[in-house]
Amino acid sequence: MTIRFGLLVFPGIQQLDLTGPYEIFASAEGAEVHLIWKDTSPVISATKLVLQPTTTFDECPQLDVICVPGGGGINPLLEDEIVLSFIRAQAAQARFITSVCTGSLVLGAAGLLKGRKATTHWNAHDFLASFGAVPTTGRIVRDGNLITAGGVTAGIDFGLAVVAALLGQEEAETVQLSLEYAPTPPFHSGTPEEATADVIARTKRRLAGSRTAREAVIARLMASQREPV
Amino acid sequence: MTIRFGLLVFPGIQQLDLTGPYEIFASAEGAEVHLIWKDTSPVISATKLVLQPTTTFDECPQLDVICVPGGGGINPLLEDEIVLSFIRAQAAQARFITSVCTGSLVLGAAGLLKGRKATTHWNAHDFLASFGAVPTTGRIVRDGNLITAGGVTAGIDFGLAVVAALLGQEEAETVQLSLEYAPTPPFHSGTPEEATADVIARTKRRLAGSRTAREAVIARLMASQREPV
Repeated sequence: MTIRFGLLVFPGIQQLDLTGPYEIFASAEGAEVHLIWKDTSPVISATKLVLQPTTTFDECPQLDVICVPGGGGINPLLEDEIVLSFIRAQAAQARFITSVCTGSLVLGAAGLLKGRKATTHWNAHDFLASFGAVPTTGRIVRDGNLITAGGVTAGIDFGLAVVAALLGQEEAETVQLSLEYAPTPPFHSGTPEEATADVIARTKRRLAGSRTAREAVIARLMASQREPV
Repeated sequence: MTIRFGLLVFPGIQQLDLTGPYEIFASAEGAEVHLIWKDTSPVISATKLVLQPTTTFDECPQLDVICVPGGGGINPLLEDEIVLSFIRAQAAQARFITSVCTGSLVLGAAGLLKGRKATTHWNAHDFLASFGAVPTTGRIVRDGNLITAGGVTAGIDFGLAVVAALLGQEEAETVQLSLEYAPTPPFHSGTPEEATADVIARTKRRLAGSRTAREAVIARLMASQREPV
């Protein structure tokens, strides 16, 4: 049995949002994994790793799992009707509609979060309400066939949960063992609850550029939805 | 201050061995990250993700950190004098000589593990002794300026430890928070100690092809070293 996974790939993506779950999905039995963009030219991620799309919006087959990763590069996607239409069309038939990190905001812009529990990166969580989502804290948040993950590395935990939902826990555990996923972070700073005030301030400064741009895009989206058409 | 990180990239690499620490390194202040191979043609990873080298053995600057990721594709590297010479030359001046997963076997083939504590993927740990290493269990094993990580996802924990060693714990914690690295695996199957017997057997079957080929390469290497020259 083939299971078709598809991850959106785009300029400015946070590459680990994609490469984490990619490795989980691609290691599962019968998996076929697509990286999808408007064309198949290489795209440059937020940290400059080059990623190669494998198919286009026009040529992508119907997916079992559509996944939208996040990163600074989602900002223009929130207003890109070509991207949003593709996601909506896939979501209508997919078994699971999913995201990692700020990818959930793109699902929101596509209208797929209304009244549904969802999460995102901690530094973007306050944006979820703008899209009518029920903002929910959690590393993996499931609401029916919608599964959203927290920031970046949450995509690995998420990937295992998705594989278990599709192929059973034993298959997920097999993938986990093959990738030796028994994480032991040397420090305890992965969430604002655990991090020191200095580290939180330093991290927010580093993420500020992308966040400010995102605030402007979302404010514009909300204003345009309030206007009479 | 610029810190130069370089990760070897090669056909058949396990992409998450590279993309995990890449994201950590590239998120650190002042980091410059190189992906190094014989030429700059794209290479295809074990799970088919395409990776783009950014420099070549001839053009790579002296690195502060040389890192060799693992994967099925390391097998030919163990006998590839061009690769081994490059690693030895970089290692002579680097501040840290490092590996993720079975990348440590390549360090071993380059003669860099003799008498030193090292680790690798759990399913390759018994190969370490062939290279004169002191096989050591641990997700991150440090012996002086040699830092080796366990299988695949250990590269993320490892990356944070390397950033802390070079730039201090506060910088590592900042990167950790920006990548929301507070892992919460949904299952507990990441090591043979935790996994069920069925999952271990299933995983070993899946990894058997690459392991059998590796056994043959290492037996040949050991035989050639015993012959009088």
